[in-house]
Amino acid sequence: MKIAIYGYGNLGKGVEHAVLNAPDMEMVGVFTRREPSAVKTIKSKVFSADRILEFKNDIDVLIICGGSATDLPKMTPTLAEHFNVIDSFDTHAKIPEHFDAVDEVCLKNNKVALISCGWDPGMFSLARVYSEAILPNGKDYTFWGRGVSQGHSDAIRRIKGVVDARQYTVPIESALQSVRNGEMPEFTARQKHLRECYVVAEEGADLKAIEQEIVTMPNYFADYDTTVNFISLEELKEKHMGIPHGGKVIRTGTTANGENKHVIEYSLKLDSNPEFTASVLVAYARAVNKMYYKKDYGCKTVLDVAPADLSLRSGKNLRKEML
Amino acid sequence: MKIAIYGYGNLGKGVEHAVLNAPDMEMVGVFTRREPSAVKTIKSKVFSADRILEFKNDIDVLIICGGSATDLPKMTPTLAEHFNVIDSFDTHAKIPEHFDAVDEVCLKNNKVALISCGWDPGMFSLARVYSEAILPNGKDYTFWGRGVSQGHSDAIRRIKGVVDARQYTVPIESALQSVRNGEMPEFTARQKHLRECYVVAEEGADLKAIEQEIVTMPNYFADYDTTVNFISLEELKEKHMGIPHGGKVIRTGTTANGENKHVIEYSLKLDSNPEFTASVLVAYARAVNKMYYKKDYGCKTVLDVAPADLSLRSGKNLRKEML
Repeated sequence: MKIAIYGYGNLGKGVEHAVLNAPDMEMVGVFTRREPSAVKTIKSKVFSADRILEFKNDIDVLIICGGSATDLPKMTPTLAEHFNVIDSFDTHAKIPEHFDAVDEVCLKNNKVALISCGWDPGMFSLARVYSEAILPNGKDYTFWGRGVSQGHSDAIRRIKGVVDARQYTVPIESALQSVRNGEMPEFTARQKHLRECYVVAEEGADLKAIEQEIVTMPNYFADYDTTVNFISLEELKEKHMGIPHGGKVIRTGTTANGENKHVIEYSLKLDSNPEFTASVLVAYARAVNKMYYKKDYGCKTVLDVAPADLSLRSGKNLRKEML
Repeated sequence: MKIAIYGYGNLGKGVEHAVLNAPDMEMVGVFTRREPSAVKTIKSKVFSADRILEFKNDIDVLIICGGSATDLPKMTPTLAEHFNVIDSFDTHAKIPEHFDAVDEVCLKNNKVALISCGWDPGMFSLARVYSEAILPNGKDYTFWGRGVSQGHSDAIRRIKGVVDARQYTVPIESALQSVRNGEMPEFTARQKHLRECYVVAEEGADLKAIEQEIVTMPNYFADYDTTVNFISLEELKEKHMGIPHGGKVIRTGTTANGENKHVIEYSLKLDSNPEFTASVLVAYARAVNKMYYKKDYGCKTVLDVAPADLSLRSGKNLRKEML
């Protein structure tokens, strides 16, 4: 399968790593809206995004690595006119709208797209759907972290007097335990997650005022217990440059009219959020290619893909070795 | 969908519970090789297994609840001639053989079968396949327990002087931790699991001899650290009548040439092993029916089924609420 990458930030680089590691994939190149000579890849060729249509017949699946806020709602439907595509669109509330836009283009042009791939949406969605189907009498909980939230880190950076910042989302251990015990609790936002901030302030900045502005910030922090730690730029660079993340989907439910309790837990602990997301995208690119050859056109999600289609193994080998 | 159950032990009863709880399913009845009047169901009709062909046109999916050792290798191919079927065949080494036998019958008769459904094989197989596809540079580990092993309990019961017994398989915590730390250890059987036995002996039996016979029993106990606790029949009945089980599939792997480490863990904690297995069977019966209407005939496994096909929700609703 011939793969190309459209957009080259942390996610694009993770995709390049994963594709170079896949024995069934060949890398066509990276397409960028920046000046191509300014983009340093691991070893792939770089082309201007303007030239993508020249490669119309040379790419089996195009992996689009753009942002969900403004890039993907335009890029994915536009590119799906000419390519089989996959993206990691993660604005949960706007998935139906994005799906419909992409589906229409795919059906008109006999292409396959898979949207909202990654771990949430993605692997966590799978965990929710499988668990609900098996334990209909139950309740599921998604916890995130401990991990860096880029959105919350950016929000802190916009405050006057802040040089740089990292925000960690941290699940509350007692809440996790209550869920695992099958107590089926109802939580407020504050009861599920803590927000832990590491902030580098300008010299002479009013630290009390910065802290106050963070902990009272609506939508981002006001509804949570938030701790603010002021640290030096050196310490930030030494201890907080990683992009770890992860989380857990837990469903508890009962069978036999409530007689017996069961707990299903799916958990991820990731040293690099973008590299793991990239690895999921690359596994699903394999499935997109298979659907295309089966003429199963249209927009898909991870929920529409049989697990065997992600694997390098044959059906026979899967049954022998993995079942 | 019209569902029937073939065989009515603990698993069959669990299936009946789950079907009665499913709003899209109607229970045709239970088919038994015993005298029908001797079988007490929750509320389903009971028929002699001999009469199953009279119901050829009244059953969408037949859920076969027999044992893997001798029942299923005969029952599943025989019944797949006339019905869409699903079973929980769990002798891992013989799955390819069972698959081929069932597949041949299904293709000849335009039927769908799904074999080896449950949690291992089943949900644990899914966890292994998804995780390997996403993290090809890694290693996976399956731990079982803490839970009752029927096979090991039976083996103890066959010893002279033993009245009754329960054997719990227990994962070793330090082994779990080593895996979660990404150390990718190599384990012997003894290093992964303990075997904990609760034994009721006849009055005057030679307890030392019984203990010795258990801990040295080849295949079952000799390769493990085994503890033997002699208890009264009353205590066994009070504390050890449940059939709990569960376990974990953990894969650790790296991305970016080993630079970053990731841990994927899928874990089950089940109060009732047969009721949970039954719940998985019933969810997959929904998928079997869908495949039949798509004329996607042949033998399948959980690896061939898209998660959306297990759900009561529409594709649209899944994308809006669950993705």
